[in-house]
Amino acid sequence: MQAELISRRDIDFLLYEVLDLEKLTQLERFADHSRETFDQVIATAETLARDYFEPHAAKLDENEPQFKNGTVELIPEVKEALEHFYAAGFGAATQDYELGGMQLPFSISVICKALFTAGNVSTHAYPALSGANANVIKNFASQEQKDLYLQPLLDGRFTGTMALTEPQAGSSLADIKTLAKPVSEGVYSLKGNKIFISGGDHSLSENIIHLVLARVQGAPAGIKGLSLFLVPKYLVNPDGSLGPRNDVALGGLIHKMGYRGTTSTLLHFGEQGGAVAYLIGEAGQGLAYMFQMMNEARIGVGVGAVALGYTAYLQAVDYALDRPQGRAVGNRDAASPQLAIIQHADIRRMLLEAKSYVEGGLCLSLYGAQLADTKSWHPDKTEQEKAAALLEILTPVLKSWPSRYCLEANYLAIQVHGGYGYTRDYPLERLYRDNRLNPIHEGTEGIQSLDLLGRKLFMGDAYSLLCKEIAETLEAVRHTPALAELVGHLEEALQKFRQTTDRLLELKASQGTALFLANSSLYLDVTGKLVVSWLWLRQAQVACQGLSANPASQEQAFYRGKMNACQYYLRWELPKIHAACELLSSGDATCYQAEAETF
Amino acid sequence: MQAELISRRDIDFLLYEVLDLEKLTQLERFADHSRETFDQVIATAETLARDYFEPHAAKLDENEPQFKNGTVELIPEVKEALEHFYAAGFGAATQDYELGGMQLPFSISVICKALFTAGNVSTHAYPALSGANANVIKNFASQEQKDLYLQPLLDGRFTGTMALTEPQAGSSLADIKTLAKPVSEGVYSLKGNKIFISGGDHSLSENIIHLVLARVQGAPAGIKGLSLFLVPKYLVNPDGSLGPRNDVALGGLIHKMGYRGTTSTLLHFGEQGGAVAYLIGEAGQGLAYMFQMMNEARIGVGVGAVALGYTAYLQAVDYALDRPQGRAVGNRDAASPQLAIIQHADIRRMLLEAKSYVEGGLCLSLYGAQLADTKSWHPDKTEQEKAAALLEILTPVLKSWPSRYCLEANYLAIQVHGGYGYTRDYPLERLYRDNRLNPIHEGTEGIQSLDLLGRKLFMGDAYSLLCKEIAETLEAVRHTPALAELVGHLEEALQKFRQTTDRLLELKASQGTALFLANSSLYLDVTGKLVVSWLWLRQAQVACQGLSANPASQEQAFYRGKMNACQYYLRWELPKIHAACELLSSGDATCYQAEAETF
Repeated sequence: MQAELISRRDIDFLLYEVLDLEKLTQLERFADHSRETFDQVIATAETLARDYFEPHAAKLDENEPQFKNGTVELIPEVKEALEHFYAAGFGAATQDYELGGMQLPFSISVICKALFTAGNVSTHAYPALSGANANVIKNFASQEQKDLYLQPLLDGRFTGTMALTEPQAGSSLADIKTLAKPVSEGVYSLKGNKIFISGGDHSLSENIIHLVLARVQGAPAGIKGLSLFLVPKYLVNPDGSLGPRNDVALGGLIHKMGYRGTTSTLLHFGEQGGAVAYLIGEAGQGLAYMFQMMNEARIGVGVGAVALGYTAYLQAVDYALDRPQGRAVGNRDAASPQLAIIQHADIRRMLLEAKSYVEGGLCLSLYGAQLADTKSWHPDKTEQEKAAALLEILTPVLKSWPSRYCLEANYLAIQVHGGYGYTRDYPLERLYRDNRLNPIHEGTEGIQSLDLLGRKLFMGDAYSLLCKEIAETLEAVRHTPALAELVGHLEEALQKFRQTTDRLLELKASQGTALFLANSSLYLDVTGKLVVSWLWLRQAQVACQGLSANPASQEQAFYRGKMNACQYYLRWELPKIHAACELLSSGDATCYQAEAETF
Repeated sequence: MQAELISRRDIDFLLYEVLDLEKLTQLERFADHSRETFDQVIATAETLARDYFEPHAAKLDENEPQFKNGTVELIPEVKEALEHFYAAGFGAATQDYELGGMQLPFSISVICKALFTAGNVSTHAYPALSGANANVIKNFASQEQKDLYLQPLLDGRFTGTMALTEPQAGSSLADIKTLAKPVSEGVYSLKGNKIFISGGDHSLSENIIHLVLARVQGAPAGIKGLSLFLVPKYLVNPDGSLGPRNDVALGGLIHKMGYRGTTSTLLHFGEQGGAVAYLIGEAGQGLAYMFQMMNEARIGVGVGAVALGYTAYLQAVDYALDRPQGRAVGNRDAASPQLAIIQHADIRRMLLEAKSYVEGGLCLSLYGAQLADTKSWHPDKTEQEKAAALLEILTPVLKSWPSRYCLEANYLAIQVHGGYGYTRDYPLERLYRDNRLNPIHEGTEGIQSLDLLGRKLFMGDAYSLLCKEIAETLEAVRHTPALAELVGHLEEALQKFRQTTDRLLELKASQGTALFLANSSLYLDVTGKLVVSWLWLRQAQVACQGLSANPASQEQAFYRGKMNACQYYLRWELPKIHAACELLSSGDATCYQAEAETF
């Protein structure tokens, strides 16, 4: 019934008109690619997502993985979908040709991820996690380890997990207790419990490769004492065949509000004496290795949040176009036909708000991915460093802004559907439940905001680079009459952002770090609104050109829609930063000083 | 594990210190009551809610009502809970003594409703709906109808529904098609389909009494042609015994995101030829009768939303006090013990935000209920009319503000719990799913905002009365030093609200009603923030007195908590209205003008 999971017209607009990602094909890494190959991959992802992922999404939600006869069983459609996914090469989409990969830009893989997630986030989580796992192994493991584990992880024979947190640690990885005792060169005996391990057990693959943060016996307390270990569910013989079961046991399946098809597990390592664990890289570098993967992982969470909101938004538009209800203001003739609800101003408000979030979010995610590609593959070191700096400072925004606001798009999509949106006959409520995870995992908003204000703001010239990028766009569009008002809004906001940042730094100097950081989540939100506004202005800039250049009515409507959404965001959302900046600048201590006993 | 469903200290504070509801006992209607009887009823409600409602809430959510062997079956705990509920007299709490009622003020019943809802919203919905149904019958039905149906509805032998909307009508009740053909004096043969009928079928009671909006054959189109009918599932003989099954069939159970234990049904009336339906009151008055019940029904939705958010907030506080994680900013000694997370500024921010919503919401609901009691029972006609006017203009706020912001409290409570909050091992995710219904039913926010700006603003002197009430509080506390800053915030906001309202009325005159109403949901939100800020200032006023009068440390902490939450709301939330007022005053047409084809 619904035409698209994510608007293909919008994907093309963002990739080729706004961000000009076609120019990635000029880089040596992507020299064999062209817009045509990109488009083909995207079209394949869309087809697979629609044909093999989306059709069982509701069924999987209603039929959670179950522990039966010693294994965790999923409905068979999951495995079938993954077979198609791997057969089409998506398990190694961004990998080197030598590894059987397609050597695609990360940005293109982000679009594919959006499509698969929009179709079925739970099923897609298994290969997504395995891909992240494979990247860690590729970047930090020994050649011997790579030879044994990398290829099966890329072709889907093995799947992978990230086993970081523990029941007593939560976000405080410094408090991880899992212990690794040395057995022989590079081999350890590991004991401990890990919680919230997605994909921690199932029967979708021959083997599951856990990447486990643990502390080598005698290592210092805190994050400096953490090392990274490879712990397979089944030991792998030197010839690649599977050996005996390792000492890793399923402690329990965690039942969640949404994302129900992705197993979330409590894992016991070493209950029978010790799990065989192989050190990856150097001892004590565990968190450093994880952090090097974190930018892309956080973009991944962000684009996942975008996808779940985006597909709900498109369904709300379809519904609003089709559903007759009520009449125009002032029309009291009950015999006249009802209007499609999209004719009501408040429905338009909700759709415009959702549109500004999901299309703004997709632009944000793709911009982040573009930075990651530039950082990794651009031949010019200056460009690389600039992209790296922008990526660092934006990572908290890339993760948290879509998690918050694209979930809001899900809220609005339900609201547009009225009572129907609350029923399980429509996928809206499931998408809302699924998306509720995103503000939590990979670092809550609180964690992200401390990362931004406590760390990233001081990382080289990232902050000034960001301000400069925004200022450059303002300069570029300053004299476009249709954008004059919007330029004014963004310019004012940028100035306020700079003043607020300066004021915060003064507060840090005069009052100390604790108060400086107390309202960091507000600062993160302001930064997100500013950055998304900037990217919306860039979209509007292209839309203006499109309106002049392309008279086709469908194209005119598309570009006008972009102008509307940009206007909405800069008129309705961006001005909210002013009240927030006042609070930040005043060093407001309302929350900071609220004593525990007063709640 | 959790101490309370709703804070009893807060209930006492709001009832007796802030709103002085004890003075209701001076009214003839409540002359037999005293603070002691109120307290006893509240204590009983709390005990029943904890002992019989809350324990099966999770089980009911996991075991939805099912259609089996011709009936809709629920887990047995529901019926048991209702037996206790009715045995304790809650089915007729506010009813006349002659009807076996307790003749309690509506405000006290609102507290009881909050407690039952916090315990188990789905189970409580059955008697809540039956009570609303009984009130319609009491107020508008004939003596003969009352004799047959009222008592069984109050004692739980019968239950009741409100069968208003239809698949093609949604919120547009003007488009209801169900048809009633006259058969004999007051008796009709009814045909049509009704959707989203809560409690529409089940085996909890001997009979189900549907109140059905329908159109008498030949009646005009639109809402003026609607009449209200009583349609029992089983016909009732003149002696009160049950006769044959009426022509009402279950068309289907609707499966929802939350509120899963309350059946939501599609009902077919008259599939076998025609359901026996009895006209209530006069033909053509159907919607008028429903509207007279709507203020209390909408307060009911509001307080339900408060309760679901409130109980989640209390759980988040408990969790934050108990859960160790992370260390103070600047403490890098990983060997030092972890802090309880309530020590982190961002956790306090979330708790303070949630506190300001749920305690502000409870105060709002109780204030609304107080207006309803005054309107109904005050001997002074001027007081009655004043209360009626305030209640009218505030009803959209009473319904929509808690629905929006107490759901946000559920969001925050999950966030405080981190990953655990997303699991079904904690009740947080269920409460969030349950509360998601409240912004939808009994009129979406869009509908409420049109009611406020399009109707209530012009209803007598309601608007100026509201402004005057707020101004009076400002005068009363103007010279309290501890409140000076807060007075400033509210005064500025009131002024802005008045200016914005004036400007909107100018816009209406100059540009017409459609544009005037286009951004009504923004106006509703501004009004809600203003009113809740005002009520927070009233709470702070009392808290100031309490801080001086009561040196006990627990009391000091309680009152300081009230000051903190008031400060949070007036510093962090209220200033958000300024950007909204700018948009409203400018007659912003961004949403209004967004054409359907541009989405």
